[in-house]
Amino acid sequence: MNNFALTLAYDGTPFCGWQLQPNGTSVQQQLEHAIEQATGTHSRVTGCSRTDAGVHAREFVCNFFSSTHISPEQLPAALNFYLPPQIAVRACRAVPQTFHARYDCKAKTYRYHIHNSPVRDPFLLHRAHQVSRPLDVDMLHAQAQDFVGTHDFAAFCAAGSSVKTTVRTVTHAAVQRDGDSVIFSVRGEGFLYHMVRIMAGTLLHIAAGKLQQGSIPAVLASGDRAQAGPTAPACGLCLWEVEY
Amino acid sequence: MNNFALTLAYDGTPFCGWQLQPNGTSVQQQLEHAIEQATGTHSRVTGCSRTDAGVHAREFVCNFFSSTHISPEQLPAALNFYLPPQIAVRACRAVPQTFHARYDCKAKTYRYHIHNSPVRDPFLLHRAHQVSRPLDVDMLHAQAQDFVGTHDFAAFCAAGSSVKTTVRTVTHAAVQRDGDSVIFSVRGEGFLYHMVRIMAGTLLHIAAGKLQQGSIPAVLASGDRAQAGPTAPACGLCLWEVEY
Repeated sequence: MNNFALTLAYDGTPFCGWQLQPNGTSVQQQLEHAIEQATGTHSRVTGCSRTDAGVHAREFVCNFFSSTHISPEQLPAALNFYLPPQIAVRACRAVPQTFHARYDCKAKTYRYHIHNSPVRDPFLLHRAHQVSRPLDVDMLHAQAQDFVGTHDFAAFCAAGSSVKTTVRTVTHAAVQRDGDSVIFSVRGEGFLYHMVRIMAGTLLHIAAGKLQQGSIPAVLASGDRAQAGPTAPACGLCLWEVEY
Repeated sequence: MNNFALTLAYDGTPFCGWQLQPNGTSVQQQLEHAIEQATGTHSRVTGCSRTDAGVHAREFVCNFFSSTHISPEQLPAALNFYLPPQIAVRACRAVPQTFHARYDCKAKTYRYHIHNSPVRDPFLLHRAHQVSRPLDVDMLHAQAQDFVGTHDFAAFCAAGSSVKTTVRTVTHAAVQRDGDSVIFSVRGEGFLYHMVRIMAGTLLHIAAGKLQQGSIPAVLASGDRAQAGPTAPACGLCLWEVEY
């Protein structure tokens, strides 16, 4: 059995997220189906992350074991043939037996895309979260720096999540404008359930004056989900880069 | 009755084109419906162009007469409320009674978007035409210069079109690369039915070696649709800018 690592991109709009669900079509399900069609054998796929329903990925890495004779060079075309057009296998490589897409991932970068205009953009439907009032990007960038470092992010974790620790390290956070697009980007070793969306929602809460500037350290210290802002909509979020 | 000019953007994917059709949902139909809902009266809308099914518009201007008391400033939000999310009214202004969106249009710029990669991009589904083989952009740019000028474009007009003359003036043509995106942009006073898509298809025919480099002048001179390349798919085309 060889261990294959795939790099995917997907538009999350039509899927219930990465992970297999009893009801609903997941990216993992579509991919395992395509692997079975292409190789003749079912393989369980391990993803680098569990993206939520409607969340996108520009770069998503996963791995699976297979005795297929299809070469890593030929696998992308073979799998893309069986995948829906909203999912693309961008690359494939043979990796050591020990490679694990989740455990070996050193850093992930997410981008949260805000369409900052009173007028919607048909080309950003399901791709960005629209905010009408003009956002002060410099202020938000300064606020976002309070996320950087090793903190207990319990206040930025959705209820119902079971993890050993809610301590995570954020290595980079930025808010930048490109025309009507305001992008919140954040890089870290790992993220809690809904963490990036709650971070984005908290920044938007500050922008709306519902939370004071400079209050992120206190929200972190509280460990209380109710002190942070709302969970920003899934459509704005995209897994941008994964590092190994 | 006041004359209102609207600037629209739309994702053409779900529509049978701009123009009203007996079967199928057109952008014009959706807009006239929204105007009737918002103003209480039916108005016939005049568009600057008749985009095909699946063709997009970043900037599309149209006008209609109405006795509505809704101000031009308020009309975009009122209409957007009734429009599907794939159509957006970006702006509205009161214009002189004589203003006509089609006749008064001085120039239109179209962009044809080619995703030049062997791997599809889920985020360009229905937005770009995928071409796997690497395109020589400098060569194509040079070829496209033969479109510039006043020519009889009969060879670049779909059969079944009834126009007084097939002479048109192209003022600018360019082929440029931005990563995996190859953009053919063309500016002119007006275009024939399928003209830009046949121009794009002809450039791709040259790229594929099915038509010799330097043959565009001969194709123009022939006036024969069969001498040009195929009509490139609608999804790659976007009305980019209209000038008055």
